[in-house]
Amino acid sequence: MSIRGNMLIAQSGGPTAAINASLAGAVGQAMKCPEIEKIYGAKNGVEGILRENLVDLRPLLRSEEDFTRLKATPAMALGSCRKRLAEKPDQEYEALREIFHRFGIRYFFYIGGNDSMDAVKKLSAYFKACGDEIRIVGIPKTIDNDMACTDHTPGFGSAARYIATSMAEIACDSAIYTPDSLTLVEIMGRNAGWLTAAAALARRPGCTAPQLICMPEAPFDEESFLRRVRELQAKENHLIIAVSEGIRYEDGTYVAAQSKLDAFGHRQLSGAAHTLGRLLLEKIGCKVRPIELNVLQRAAAHLSSETDLEEASRIGAEAVSLGIAGKTGVMATFERISDQPYLLRYSYAEIDKVANVEKTVPVEWIDGEHMDIRPELIRYLSPLIQSPSQKEPGLPTYFMV
Amino acid sequence: MSIRGNMLIAQSGGPTAAINASLAGAVGQAMKCPEIEKIYGAKNGVEGILRENLVDLRPLLRSEEDFTRLKATPAMALGSCRKRLAEKPDQEYEALREIFHRFGIRYFFYIGGNDSMDAVKKLSAYFKACGDEIRIVGIPKTIDNDMACTDHTPGFGSAARYIATSMAEIACDSAIYTPDSLTLVEIMGRNAGWLTAAAALARRPGCTAPQLICMPEAPFDEESFLRRVRELQAKENHLIIAVSEGIRYEDGTYVAAQSKLDAFGHRQLSGAAHTLGRLLLEKIGCKVRPIELNVLQRAAAHLSSETDLEEASRIGAEAVSLGIAGKTGVMATFERISDQPYLLRYSYAEIDKVANVEKTVPVEWIDGEHMDIRPELIRYLSPLIQSPSQKEPGLPTYFMV
Repeated sequence: MSIRGNMLIAQSGGPTAAINASLAGAVGQAMKCPEIEKIYGAKNGVEGILRENLVDLRPLLRSEEDFTRLKATPAMALGSCRKRLAEKPDQEYEALREIFHRFGIRYFFYIGGNDSMDAVKKLSAYFKACGDEIRIVGIPKTIDNDMACTDHTPGFGSAARYIATSMAEIACDSAIYTPDSLTLVEIMGRNAGWLTAAAALARRPGCTAPQLICMPEAPFDEESFLRRVRELQAKENHLIIAVSEGIRYEDGTYVAAQSKLDAFGHRQLSGAAHTLGRLLLEKIGCKVRPIELNVLQRAAAHLSSETDLEEASRIGAEAVSLGIAGKTGVMATFERISDQPYLLRYSYAEIDKVANVEKTVPVEWIDGEHMDIRPELIRYLSPLIQSPSQKEPGLPTYFMV
Repeated sequence: MSIRGNMLIAQSGGPTAAINASLAGAVGQAMKCPEIEKIYGAKNGVEGILRENLVDLRPLLRSEEDFTRLKATPAMALGSCRKRLAEKPDQEYEALREIFHRFGIRYFFYIGGNDSMDAVKKLSAYFKACGDEIRIVGIPKTIDNDMACTDHTPGFGSAARYIATSMAEIACDSAIYTPDSLTLVEIMGRNAGWLTAAAALARRPGCTAPQLICMPEAPFDEESFLRRVRELQAKENHLIIAVSEGIRYEDGTYVAAQSKLDAFGHRQLSGAAHTLGRLLLEKIGCKVRPIELNVLQRAAAHLSSETDLEEASRIGAEAVSLGIAGKTGVMATFERISDQPYLLRYSYAEIDKVANVEKTVPVEWIDGEHMDIRPELIRYLSPLIQSPSQKEPGLPTYFMV
């Protein structure tokens, strides 16, 4: 079933610390495949293909050191785009087909999130309908961990490690003064609370932060929130609340959207921490400190999870093997065999089941009453942030007086 | 000149990633000194002393591992305070004196910034005037690097390493899409631009970010700023501007203070990036992204500079040696012998020359016309962020297509 020809690979959507590891894994595997001749990287995803902005990757990746460096580089080495193909084939589809033919592309690998898998779905169906044997395989990627049919997504573990470590450091930072304080840490995730939940990995003997976790999956209720804060303040002076940018009321309206327009006149989701901060200041009145974790959540390669980078690289390689084996219109996936020991199987899913589907945190892993998560979620998250070569593979332990 | 007695040590002011290294260094040295009997740590600085909240540190620091852990813990293991003693001795001075006598304290080491050195100054003068032989030595600490008489301050190198690394990652993150963008990264430092300048350490072959550096020492002029942005936009699509929270106009008014009150009704300095962002959006109009580096600037122990931690530990030990040698009313200091190789001498300064003095960046190290810094400042900064045991002691190198 193997066909000879050239390969094209591209990256799309928002950055992660692991997306280049998938690029490295796929290219490394392709170099071992006699079926694959030229290896092109498209700059800026599908947009770059349409502009014929293709780079020959073989001369750029010659040594083991080149691959190591690529794996450790955050965001997209090839650039990205946020482009959606039309629902029905149009002249852009035709242009892409003509370019694929002219460059002899028989394998196309697209590394991206839900939107990017939509392109895999549309293009693979289109090429099939045209009778072209061009194999298209998606490689998942997103810090949001919201993709269907895969246990988790490459990029999530590194973001989770960053968030958990930062949370532990913020907990130290917020506890140094004697007056009571409430710290709100806003975390990315518009519809899925996976990243916000990862803040709970900071909890260890001597660190109870974050004491509250507010996720988009659990409707936000002001009265319950204030009651819970007061309950916890009776026990601890310094509380830290992990807040997803996408928390919403029972009726589905975003908590942050209730606030004013942002500095640029856009009604943005960032601002949940500030909105809750105002509420706490008004109703409770102690020192309130809202902190927005910024783009480093997705770009902090210096704190990436080795487990994540290894898996991201491997799933890139697996995607190439799927293409060589004749698959098209699929996405490479992880299947978890067990939490402890942590074991994964590499597999794939039909792209129809993946594209445009958002996977949120199962409600049974959320403790809505206590605004917290359940132990099952901790067991799910823990293996993903481990860096086994480090002296402390999980989180650093601190000295407590 | 050596006197036998108990030692007291405390921490004060804002957190750094290295302040516990100084605690570890001082306590480790004290344990080697036969003159020192009990070693007390005061919780929450001078406030804790007044409440007699003293902890016996010997039983808490028994093994090498305890010291290693303490050194790697961010913020103050003993807690902090923001307390200023009265200008003239009052009943608090008397209370402190009574407590020092009752606990047999002959050595007091206070780790802190400019405000904390004010306490060292006042208490050492007071005890001298009372005829008490109680030796008081300050140990410098601040991420702001704004203390006089010392080449730099413990804590600064780690914050600088965090800022430079984050800047490099943000540069990768901001360059992935094709449309032009302007990213503003707001960095701590109310009156001194040392931390903002450290963002320039991100520059390497393939990384020109930050293209502009706005510091409090150089008056901010809107017209020049916009002209410089336009000049640079002719050359590069994605610009990153490092902005100190404390930038101000020629007349001394803060740029950020011009903006509205913050969410809590306080007129705070945070907001320089948002203020400039609004200006750029209005006058230039491409994608504008303001990012506030948050408290992790001072708390990110996971990215601390090994050089900083080593020096912080050593200066803690040196301070104890100064006390044993009979010094009081002094602060331990660094004197730089050379940049390359980087060589330091440990010394001390009279506390009168240190307390309440703010050291800003020398104007000759700033290139006001280009809104940038000069090479001398890079040579000064570079050694401070190095972690020699790491594969890449300075910043990570990235893969460039």
